[in-house]
Amino acid sequence: MSLMWTVKVLGLGVVALSLSVELLSRLLHRLRPGGPLNEALFFPSELACVEHIFTSLSPRSCLCPLPHGVETSFSRLLRRILSATSSLDLCVFAFSNMGLSRAVLALHSRGVTVRVLTDKDYTAIPGSQIGVLRKAGICVRCDASPVHMHHKFAVVDGRLLITGSLNWTLAAVQSNMENVLVTEEPDLVRPYVKEFLRLWERNDPGQMPPHE
Amino acid sequence: MSLMWTVKVLGLGVVALSLSVELLSRLLHRLRPGGPLNEALFFPSELACVEHIFTSLSPRSCLCPLPHGVETSFSRLLRRILSATSSLDLCVFAFSNMGLSRAVLALHSRGVTVRVLTDKDYTAIPGSQIGVLRKAGICVRCDASPVHMHHKFAVVDGRLLITGSLNWTLAAVQSNMENVLVTEEPDLVRPYVKEFLRLWERNDPGQMPPHE
Repeated sequence: MSLMWTVKVLGLGVVALSLSVELLSRLLHRLRPGGPLNEALFFPSELACVEHIFTSLSPRSCLCPLPHGVETSFSRLLRRILSATSSLDLCVFAFSNMGLSRAVLALHSRGVTVRVLTDKDYTAIPGSQIGVLRKAGICVRCDASPVHMHHKFAVVDGRLLITGSLNWTLAAVQSNMENVLVTEEPDLVRPYVKEFLRLWERNDPGQMPPHE
Repeated sequence: MSLMWTVKVLGLGVVALSLSVELLSRLLHRLRPGGPLNEALFFPSELACVEHIFTSLSPRSCLCPLPHGVETSFSRLLRRILSATSSLDLCVFAFSNMGLSRAVLALHSRGVTVRVLTDKDYTAIPGSQIGVLRKAGICVRCDASPVHMHHKFAVVDGRLLITGSLNWTLAAVQSNMENVLVTEEPDLVRPYVKEFLRLWERNDPGQMPPHE
């Protein structure tokens, strides 16, 4: 009788242990910080000072009249871009936002390999940053085809995709209703990396006939 | 002695059973066709006949001069939209593409609840489909604010997000370089559902002062 009880107790113990291990593993899987990042950002962004994101000073040390220490869609976007440690591949129709330009220039001066692909017709918009990036030594290629190179995506370190409706302009960030999707899902990042390379190669000025 | 063996055998049996169930469940989780969908579509799309997607006839039965039976970015986009069984929430800046309009009308006539939110200024573009949708009885709301309602996203059945740079125009589908991201990741779908509802409520004509 007592041995039968031992059998039952042991059996139940083993089942309980297996279930606990399983539950713990599922919980850890959900909580693990290394899981693929998925984030949605909506615009217009609230206005707030972003100086501390560039300078690593305390948010309160800036004396500008904007609100300080507030996390906004724009500050989150800047942080995602500035998280690059090896490469930034940017494929954007219109680029005139000074804050985003500052982020790209900061990455370049840190030694991050930056490649910018843009639409030729839109390099002449007021305040276009394309000339500024070129002068800083960043490699820029322009799509000169008669259709729009209408993408607005970036790939950070070949692992993080930033895409959506948002052009890199001031109106897009501060006025329009826009969305940006940030993801590390490899099934999503991979095709964008491939498409960037395809367009990058296609717009290599060295490979184009001189009359084009 | 024999009872001790029974204990050990039973214990091992339970452990083996638990492990098998766990392994099987992991395997099924990986293989299950219902796992979160992640897909990237790039444009311009190849030109191909999409008649069979609407009519469920054989691709070869259409006599139009376009290539038949070819899967393209556009046909994939149509299929994703037409997969709706209960609802389609569409938030799009410019809508003039006849094929996409046909898909939305087909869903509406099937009894799918369609809600369309668009930018007022762009309802007057050549070939705008907004009037056509309205006449068919689809609920359309227009953002009349002075800034752009620049989104280009749709949520199918509250579970599938379609977003990117692509406006629902002919030029976007057939000429421009554009991207569309399709995902079922709940962490991505959820915020877009929420944003759609926020904008939908905000543009409720019943809640607006009559002079606006």
